[in-house]
Amino acid sequence: MNVNGEDYRTVWMEGLSVYMIEQNQLPFHFSIYRSRDYLDTCRAIRTMIVRGAGAIGAAAGFAMAQAYIQGNRDKDNEFLAKARKDIESTRPTARNLFYAVERVFEAGQEGAEKAVIEAQDLADEDARCSRMIGKYGSDLIRDGYVVETHCNAGWLAFVDYGTALSPVYVAHRQGRKISVLVDETRPRSQGARLTAWELSNEGIPHAVISDNAGAHYMSQGKVDIVIVGADRIAANGDVANKIGTLEKAIAARHYEIPFFVAAPLSTIDLSCGSGKDIVIEERAEDEVLYQSGMDAEGGITRIRVANPGSAALNPAFDITPNSLITGIITEKGIIRPTPEAIQRLFD
Amino acid sequence: MNVNGEDYRTVWMEGLSVYMIEQNQLPFHFSIYRSRDYLDTCRAIRTMIVRGAGAIGAAAGFAMAQAYIQGNRDKDNEFLAKARKDIESTRPTARNLFYAVERVFEAGQEGAEKAVIEAQDLADEDARCSRMIGKYGSDLIRDGYVVETHCNAGWLAFVDYGTALSPVYVAHRQGRKISVLVDETRPRSQGARLTAWELSNEGIPHAVISDNAGAHYMSQGKVDIVIVGADRIAANGDVANKIGTLEKAIAARHYEIPFFVAAPLSTIDLSCGSGKDIVIEERAEDEVLYQSGMDAEGGITRIRVANPGSAALNPAFDITPNSLITGIITEKGIIRPTPEAIQRLFD
Repeated sequence: MNVNGEDYRTVWMEGLSVYMIEQNQLPFHFSIYRSRDYLDTCRAIRTMIVRGAGAIGAAAGFAMAQAYIQGNRDKDNEFLAKARKDIESTRPTARNLFYAVERVFEAGQEGAEKAVIEAQDLADEDARCSRMIGKYGSDLIRDGYVVETHCNAGWLAFVDYGTALSPVYVAHRQGRKISVLVDETRPRSQGARLTAWELSNEGIPHAVISDNAGAHYMSQGKVDIVIVGADRIAANGDVANKIGTLEKAIAARHYEIPFFVAAPLSTIDLSCGSGKDIVIEERAEDEVLYQSGMDAEGGITRIRVANPGSAALNPAFDITPNSLITGIITEKGIIRPTPEAIQRLFD
Repeated sequence: MNVNGEDYRTVWMEGLSVYMIEQNQLPFHFSIYRSRDYLDTCRAIRTMIVRGAGAIGAAAGFAMAQAYIQGNRDKDNEFLAKARKDIESTRPTARNLFYAVERVFEAGQEGAEKAVIEAQDLADEDARCSRMIGKYGSDLIRDGYVVETHCNAGWLAFVDYGTALSPVYVAHRQGRKISVLVDETRPRSQGARLTAWELSNEGIPHAVISDNAGAHYMSQGKVDIVIVGADRIAANGDVANKIGTLEKAIAARHYEIPFFVAAPLSTIDLSCGSGKDIVIEERAEDEVLYQSGMDAEGGITRIRVANPGSAALNPAFDITPNSLITGIITEKGIIRPTPEAIQRLFD
């Protein structure tokens, strides 16, 4: 993707080093973080220099490959077992991470070069899935459309292109005149920070709105389609995604606006029968009570935004039932959110 | 109401001075602003030291009374005409302000003492309406209830008690075990700042939530009733209130949760046939792009929270149609949001 006219991926490997866009500093400072060994890459995942399901998976795969190179191709020593454990413990809930580490670990049994190739393949697969999601999803976005999106399911969350934003990029590059309403997405403001930054770099007209304003614009007929990403999709089509997704889905249904979820097959968890099986992560209350941003001197700082005597609740995700979802955009096409349609993707 | 164990009103008059709780500093610093003449009170209204429909009305009435005292009881001189104009131009959209200035101006024609008495009566009326709203509304809040509220329609927005929060205060003082989910209410965060501060002072259990989390808690059966205030109510029962109110009303309807609006009759504008007649104020985009709060040293500062290259849209209010409202809590009782029921209030 495009940053100041140059093409970047979110994470990539050159020699022994893994390079990542430093997402903790975005959108205020753009820099590339270089990790020279697997432990450093673990730290980068843990501290969220790299974040987002697909990007975490790719970084974890590269970390495993780094470990093979560092381990001098010794395929079964303690060093590699420890490395695998270190990588897997960085973000224990990210499904893509375990999948990637497993694949690169197995490939590395035939030598470090194989591990590097496998890690590279994984990253390329992630980018390819995102591109296909863009291809299929862009058919939904007609000339003149206003797309509303929540959180950041763009290229920063994957190796390239992203999921919810990939159809937007394809439609824009095909010359359709579109614009995007970007939900701020409190408490971590991934919409205002990351999605808005991506869209700026691509030159796509957009406006940040407070999370409160979505239904207002829908009621005025100013939203043509809502597209969001997913953190996990159950076998029946229920979707876990960033807190606030459910509220937009309900509002979209109220105003009969199409509501689509974009995600690769790797996000679908067939072991979850329905959304009820998905545990909602409760994160630290400070994310709600404080807000981070850039001060007048350009430094990144944190301020208290809530009454000092008060506590907060901070569920990170919510469950949107399949009944509120128009369709799911995958790398194999757009499907209805039904158990049968989801099963067919894997047949 | 209660601040650190002491009873306060939001605005009051003693001698020539008008005293106001300094709301720009809340919840981080509590202080009383003393205005010694009408021009100073105008400045306080303009800079939002005092805000909220009822509180603005009372402050404007007191300002008019100050002008009469300053004008040496000369009932028809240029000074009083100019003072009236100065006061009316502070917040040109606040209905209560014009009503209050008119009443105090007329009363003052019989002497400055009459102006002071009238201004005091106006403030007392505002507090009395709020108390009655609390009395009627508290019947809706049963023991064990969780109330969700949006923005600040508490005593800081009126002379005392408030509207949406008044039933909560009454239910709590009657010994019912209740708690409140406080919507943060971006962009100006009146929920996290002011409502949370009020509830802390009253010792009422509460938690701040991001505006995205409402539907999530409703979906889990954790919200028993939603009560909000109103900026204006049309003759058919459509309600203009803080942006995000509509989204909560739609979510509440989806989960069949009672959704009530609390407001005095002075908020009802019979000249507006429906919500379509109410113009939505678009405020400065900086309110969305920046956030104010308290820094590590206790100072109040502003940080950029959105991508520096991006713009924002900032509608301050939205319209909730009468069909989504369970009832309106007024000082004359609880009514259905229908044209007939509203008309009967004025018969």
